[in-house]
Amino acid sequence: MEDDRPGEFELIRRYFAPLASDPGSLGLTDDAAVLTPEPGYDLVLTKDMLAAGVHFFAGDAPEAIAAKALRVNLSDLAAKGARPRGYLMGLALPSGWTEDWLKGFCAGLEDDQNAYGIRLLGGDTIRSGNGLQVSITAIGEVETGRAVRRSGARPGEVLFVSGTIGDAAAGLKARLDAGFCQAHDLTETEEQHVLDRYLLPRPRTGLARPLSEFASAALDVSDGLIADCGHLASASAVDITIDLDKVPLSDALQHLKVKAPDDFAHCLNGGDDYEILACVPAEHAAAFQKTARLAGCPVAEIGHVEAGSGAVRLLQAGNPVSPGPESGFRHF
Amino acid sequence: MEDDRPGEFELIRRYFAPLASDPGSLGLTDDAAVLTPEPGYDLVLTKDMLAAGVHFFAGDAPEAIAAKALRVNLSDLAAKGARPRGYLMGLALPSGWTEDWLKGFCAGLEDDQNAYGIRLLGGDTIRSGNGLQVSITAIGEVETGRAVRRSGARPGEVLFVSGTIGDAAAGLKARLDAGFCQAHDLTETEEQHVLDRYLLPRPRTGLARPLSEFASAALDVSDGLIADCGHLASASAVDITIDLDKVPLSDALQHLKVKAPDDFAHCLNGGDDYEILACVPAEHAAAFQKTARLAGCPVAEIGHVEAGSGAVRLLQAGNPVSPGPESGFRHF
Repeated sequence: MEDDRPGEFELIRRYFAPLASDPGSLGLTDDAAVLTPEPGYDLVLTKDMLAAGVHFFAGDAPEAIAAKALRVNLSDLAAKGARPRGYLMGLALPSGWTEDWLKGFCAGLEDDQNAYGIRLLGGDTIRSGNGLQVSITAIGEVETGRAVRRSGARPGEVLFVSGTIGDAAAGLKARLDAGFCQAHDLTETEEQHVLDRYLLPRPRTGLARPLSEFASAALDVSDGLIADCGHLASASAVDITIDLDKVPLSDALQHLKVKAPDDFAHCLNGGDDYEILACVPAEHAAAFQKTARLAGCPVAEIGHVEAGSGAVRLLQAGNPVSPGPESGFRHF
Repeated sequence: MEDDRPGEFELIRRYFAPLASDPGSLGLTDDAAVLTPEPGYDLVLTKDMLAAGVHFFAGDAPEAIAAKALRVNLSDLAAKGARPRGYLMGLALPSGWTEDWLKGFCAGLEDDQNAYGIRLLGGDTIRSGNGLQVSITAIGEVETGRAVRRSGARPGEVLFVSGTIGDAAAGLKARLDAGFCQAHDLTETEEQHVLDRYLLPRPRTGLARPLSEFASAALDVSDGLIADCGHLASASAVDITIDLDKVPLSDALQHLKVKAPDDFAHCLNGGDDYEILACVPAEHAAAFQKTARLAGCPVAEIGHVEAGSGAVRLLQAGNPVSPGPESGFRHF
């Protein structure tokens, strides 16, 4: 069978080069990209790999797959207080790829490049033995020494989280079980909301600056709220208490909390939230909350840091509760 | 069936963290790596993705797969005149992975980290829908403004190539056809040589400094000598003439040239050589050749650059010859 789809060089020329307007990309005509670092800044580097059937559904719109692959990396940069600088992309295409699919994928990248101020620097395209895989390395910049780590939390600090928690996990349940939303009386708007939140993370890039200014520790919630709190607590060698009544919820999750407490409990620690969890010294808490709101990324106080050795404690109506059977979503 | 293999966090702790001794990796306990760039240096970034069945055989030793994945990226850095600084690795493991396999893979990485002075900065491990895929982003450093591009060749310059050409392609033929070497009377030593060269690229990292000092344009030969000369010629908007009689050959390829001219012609432009092709102003040619030899990476003069618009001309015994049917190996 003759294959009249473009080869690698033509793909680069037609689809990827227009995404690579940073001069450092050398127009994707070279073996590598060349970046002159901004004096006074550190580089923050992160890499997330996504595979069809694990991180997204193979039939998802190509625009959405592209956006998710880029956004999970942008979320990591934001959590470290870094603003996006550029990215390299490895794309393993299954044998049945079409040009229309690739057009949609690149349109999704282009929209997000414009929305988040990041540009393609380089990459590689290969045939995949099987499903689609997207591997993105994103590079961000933060003032020297100001990158926010997981390990900086100290007793007495306040725990904040951005956005709302549990929506993406509920969206995944709705994808896997078409009757899920109806069974729990979610409205059409609520159903659409959770489906959207699963399909398209919303990286809190606006929080990068407030975080690098005020936070002592932060990460993005990808494994689950409680699991990721555990990562923060153990990297910082502190204990963290979460007041579950204060965890911000969308209408859909409020609804689920009442109608289906077990499903709700799973969603609360289901992962894929891509919200930011941050520890802030008490004296900066008000300023952090204000600058976050002004940056368009409101944060809620949901707990506090105590002396300890990596434990996470949960409170509900003022009483300790157990974290339940789920200990976070396994992407691997 | 119970799966008693380690999960992602345990994998990181047990196998990957020991490879991440650069403080910027934050011990692989964070969302990202943090690099403080060296003042006065540019960063060179490259990404190559390798898949089982496309770039290596799934049954190859895990040490060799690891080495190849790292080395093809080191080769790109060397071609740009950059010394290795660090790398991020995305690893998509097929469902049947074993801890023994992973031990071998990480041992291969460790050996090469020591040999080439590069360290793991971060990455991601996921389940692969099918075969193994390795996606590496390598970062190098070169004095500001001294990165060697494809586009700098000028008429009158001398064309050099490192090492020998065609061995890896002959090695691939030998892998695909067990009778290939015997059919053409290659000795056991010659057979082992070409098999080795296919399995394990030898990135010419010693050439980085001579290239950034003397070369006006360079790239590494991965698609094939003639095909990559074409890339250089067209990026630089010049014509390039290769004197085929001057292309350095191993004993095995000399042998093949006599016994099987058609196979030889394919190998000459077969790709996967990972040797460096460089254009050097005539007045620096002797100095380049000398410093390259002192760096342990001898180079041979094989042609020259003329005014033109991207054409590659071939000479044999002083007469023009046609490039033949092969126009480079397609990795995609």
